[in-house]
Amino acid sequence: MSDLPRSVRITEEGPREGFQIEPGPIPTARKIEFINALAQTGLKRIQAVSFVNPKRVPGWADADEVVKGIIPVPGVQFAGLWLNEQGLQRALTHKDKLYIDGKINMYPSSAFLKRNNNMTQEQYRAEVLKFVATCKQNGLPVDRGSISSAFGCNFEGDIAPATVVKLVGDLLDLAGSQGLKIKAVTLADTMAWGTPLSIKRVVGAVREKFPNLPLALHLHDTRGMGIANAFAGLEMGVDRYDAAAAGLGGCPFAKHKGAAGNVCTEDFVFMCQEMGIETGVDLDKLIACAQMAEEIVGHPLPGTLKMGGTLQALRVKAAQNLAAAA
Amino acid sequence: MSDLPRSVRITEEGPREGFQIEPGPIPTARKIEFINALAQTGLKRIQAVSFVNPKRVPGWADADEVVKGIIPVPGVQFAGLWLNEQGLQRALTHKDKLYIDGKINMYPSSAFLKRNNNMTQEQYRAEVLKFVATCKQNGLPVDRGSISSAFGCNFEGDIAPATVVKLVGDLLDLAGSQGLKIKAVTLADTMAWGTPLSIKRVVGAVREKFPNLPLALHLHDTRGMGIANAFAGLEMGVDRYDAAAAGLGGCPFAKHKGAAGNVCTEDFVFMCQEMGIETGVDLDKLIACAQMAEEIVGHPLPGTLKMGGTLQALRVKAAQNLAAAA
Repeated sequence: MSDLPRSVRITEEGPREGFQIEPGPIPTARKIEFINALAQTGLKRIQAVSFVNPKRVPGWADADEVVKGIIPVPGVQFAGLWLNEQGLQRALTHKDKLYIDGKINMYPSSAFLKRNNNMTQEQYRAEVLKFVATCKQNGLPVDRGSISSAFGCNFEGDIAPATVVKLVGDLLDLAGSQGLKIKAVTLADTMAWGTPLSIKRVVGAVREKFPNLPLALHLHDTRGMGIANAFAGLEMGVDRYDAAAAGLGGCPFAKHKGAAGNVCTEDFVFMCQEMGIETGVDLDKLIACAQMAEEIVGHPLPGTLKMGGTLQALRVKAAQNLAAAA
Repeated sequence: MSDLPRSVRITEEGPREGFQIEPGPIPTARKIEFINALAQTGLKRIQAVSFVNPKRVPGWADADEVVKGIIPVPGVQFAGLWLNEQGLQRALTHKDKLYIDGKINMYPSSAFLKRNNNMTQEQYRAEVLKFVATCKQNGLPVDRGSISSAFGCNFEGDIAPATVVKLVGDLLDLAGSQGLKIKAVTLADTMAWGTPLSIKRVVGAVREKFPNLPLALHLHDTRGMGIANAFAGLEMGVDRYDAAAAGLGGCPFAKHKGAAGNVCTEDFVFMCQEMGIETGVDLDKLIACAQMAEEIVGHPLPGTLKMGGTLQALRVKAAQNLAAAA
């Protein structure tokens, strides 16, 4: 009926995405508490902090302090995002605790590149080469790639699957030209244009051309398609997903209209577990984290399972009742 | 890749579900305004009111007044729910405006039947026969069937697909024994146990045994699986869905923890339209209804698209920008 994977790897994006968008200020101690709690759920990779310009993203001005509070857990990778040389140098001071790497990110939308970076594709490629050189100079691994807005773009409109396929090829060629081996490419639905059908089409097209390249999905739930899109990915055998506990980064309040949260980690884990796909995650602990996130930000967050609850307790109770009635 | 239908029929459940669960009181005039607005969206079947005991469901004490305010629209069916003889008699006084029929509802869960109705399956069947007789006496069509909790039950636990298949057969036999022809059977995920995989398994099992029986899905979003489950139904070729504008009946507030809203109509319509499946619905008008619903109930409702917005305006703008840049 489908190619559901046996297990999935989840990168938790909640702390980075969530604390970036919240008006805050959120106490540093609570960020630390949340990250350390996430690390006890079985999630193996956590995007913990962001070394971005504190003037532009005040929510992460305390990134260095947060890292100091992180308690290492064997097998759990804490990652820190950086976007420029200054951020990289900050990140590198935490090399003992954080996993710092470089990811080659490319854009199928020339209109977005022009608008956001004021660059042509050619100029952007030169920037990527500079970026790779910086990573090499600092001894960082560069083994991941990403295609932004792979399913549509507010500035370019629909993106043809063939355009994404070509760009993945360009990305691999560019990496190869620098002696780099890309281990996985993330297809990101950055602006939430994807539907389950377009997820299947793009993943299918990329896989047909690059059958041995592991793919990951980064999905936003801005239009309510997050979990359905993740299911479509699972049906195509995709086994790597970004997600955010409680749907952090999004908000059900109208005043946060533009907030485009990632697909909710616990809702996704629930779906996987109920379909027999291993996640390695303790769902009850993860729900507790989602509830903690809601308490920390002080308003409802989009995830649904944290209210609806899991089925395990209901199953146990039903079995007891049936046994008692028999 | 799949059996996506070319078009879907949607039964809008928002008014009945939503105004039933809200603490209210919601002014009668606003209920009428909402129902009449829904009737202008292209939705062809609207569960408008509920003739239930006003002591138990005060939110529908004004059902008769609401019906009086409904403005008939050619091609739009307004339906009224009734659960007992008293409700039926109230409903029948509105036969000129409302579509009143009888639906045979069956329960795979004996534990639920025992607990909720204090009946065995055998006793319940006798009740169904009485129900059918009442419908016949009052000249009501009985051509729809429904299986409650077809994907799992809080009192019985998991429900095997074979149990649902058998019950659909029982339902058809029972109807046949009364000279009735069932035109469609709804599989209801009443307690939100379903996942995309179990939707596919149950629908597949029922379809294998009854290949010519049209199936409908009634999905609750209590655990965030609503749209993904609907997509799974679409992939199985199911072309009839119940849904509620704005996800009425559910609530993102923790204080409404038990609120189990239907899958959100506009999120579902968006998915269908973006995947090339005809809905006959004007999505912008439907989103306006969803926003009206939120305003009427006075708190956020679960639907996502009403905040995220559609893609059509973005497509037009992107095309204009690209043309201007060319």
